Amino acid sequence: MTESRDVHVHLLPELARPGCLAGSVTLVIDVLRATTTIIHALAAGCTSVRPCAEVEEAKELAGGMPAGKVLLGGERHGSPLAGFDLGNSPREYTCQACRGTTLVITTTNGTRALLRAAEAERVLIGAFVNYSAVCEQLRQDLRPIHILCAGTEGEATLEDTLLAGAVVDYLCEEMEISLNDSARLAWDCFENHGRILLGALEISHGGANLRRLGYDDDIRAAAEVDKFAIVPELRRDPLRVEVGAVGIVKTHWKK
Amino acid sequence: MTESRDVHVHLLPELARPGCLAGSVTLVIDVLRATTTIIHALAAGCTSVRPCAEVEEAKELAGGMPAGKVLLGGERHGSPLAGFDLGNSPREYTCQACRGTTLVITTTNGTRALLRAAEAERVLIGAFVNYSAVCEQLRQDLRPIHILCAGTEGEATLEDTLLAGAVVDYLCEEMEISLNDSARLAWDCFENHGRILLGALEISHGGANLRRLGYDDDIRAAAEVDKFAIVPELRRDPLRVEVGAVGIVKTHWKK
Repeated sequence: MTESRDVHVHLLPELARPGCLAGSVTLVIDVLRATTTIIHALAAGCTSVRPCAEVEEAKELAGGMPAGKVLLGGERHGSPLAGFDLGNSPREYTCQACRGTTLVITTTNGTRALLRAAEAERVLIGAFVNYSAVCEQLRQDLRPIHILCAGTEGEATLEDTLLAGAVVDYLCEEMEISLNDSARLAWDCFENHGRILLGALEISHGGANLRRLGYDDDIRAAAEVDKFAIVPELRRDPLRVEVGAVGIVKTHWKK
Repeated sequence: MTESRDVHVHLLPELARPGCLAGSVTLVIDVLRATTTIIHALAAGCTSVRPCAEVEEAKELAGGMPAGKVLLGGERHGSPLAGFDLGNSPREYTCQACRGTTLVITTTNGTRALLRAAEAERVLIGAFVNYSAVCEQLRQDLRPIHILCAGTEGEATLEDTLLAGAVVDYLCEEMEISLNDSARLAWDCFENHGRILLGALEISHGGANLRRLGYDDDIRAAAEVDKFAIVPELRRDPLRVEVGAVGIVKTHWKK
């Protein structure tokens, strides 16, 4: 029997203690909508995504790049930002808009989670839309695994926890693993809500917010399991997200 | 149809935003072991429990009370404290030790949760050992319901979340309720782990700690659903826990 691997879920970035991600491979999840959108943008041809914590920082960074080669995107509390090219809806990130550009992005929760995860040795970006490709990368990696959920403004969310649980479910079948309590909670969430994925995203607090703002399509887009086979990865100097691995053999989705 | 009642679970005290408990009835849960122990102590004859955040504060408070009328109890990181009468094991709180005394208690997580909950209008203390009695009280109350899990040193725990989910499960059958995402996660946890309660408490992070320290009996004690029919309640001036309601008609445990 192989040695068991640690799989730790953090339901919110602030619940991951300082230093705990060091040496790990960390998966960042913000299903509604930052990580779903970043995956869409890279699949549509953005060469790189630059996460910024603040709106002004994003504007300044984008302002220093050659026109036509940069997209400024993001949101605050779900709504698009004045003077930005795009909001945070996956469907806005078309091939026409994205091809050959750098996306500078700032979002309420997802960006914060990404920046927190930078402490890890390797950082992957996941959503339902690249579920199986992410599972495959985590399986092949040999480091301890941390899964960092973005949550919504300091609250654990159903949608991020559900995806964390789906990943735990896959890993449990593939290897001997040792779970923290939050990973067990996430697994329970997947067991109960995995079969009604779209419904779960709709009843979640974040989903209800998006519906109120008229973004029903974004929820459907977030629920498209395995639409893409790419796994975005955080690179350094400067901090940016680019396509890392590509390609899965088969879907691992079990519901 | 009656109006729906808010049922909000907080997986850790620090996840309950300042002010959010105001006007509510809040249930405090620290299954392993503070709330289980407090219920045991009151059932065994303690007239009152005084929660203290700090060890020195507890010593000072107990020191000012008449000898023979006070018990000093508690723990840090699971172990008893030097100079204290009792630790944090439910089985230590016998009728002989408790009758007619005030218990001054300080624990790592449970006390902190209790003091945080003081913001609520009404505060109940729950564990598996008084599950149905607590459910009954929450059903009869008309305020919004918050369930505050103590967790373990900043981490959400399986055992507290499981009990929170069991309470949500009961309330969902009794009334129209509106859940936050953490309440849904707790409900999922109960759905999956409720049938194997003792096993769940044993595999949890807190349970594993207790087993390492030789407190296996405490885990079994914590899993005795509906051993008691009392519902301890927080009183003010001075802040203390006393028996509030007594009596249930039947068990509501559904697993």
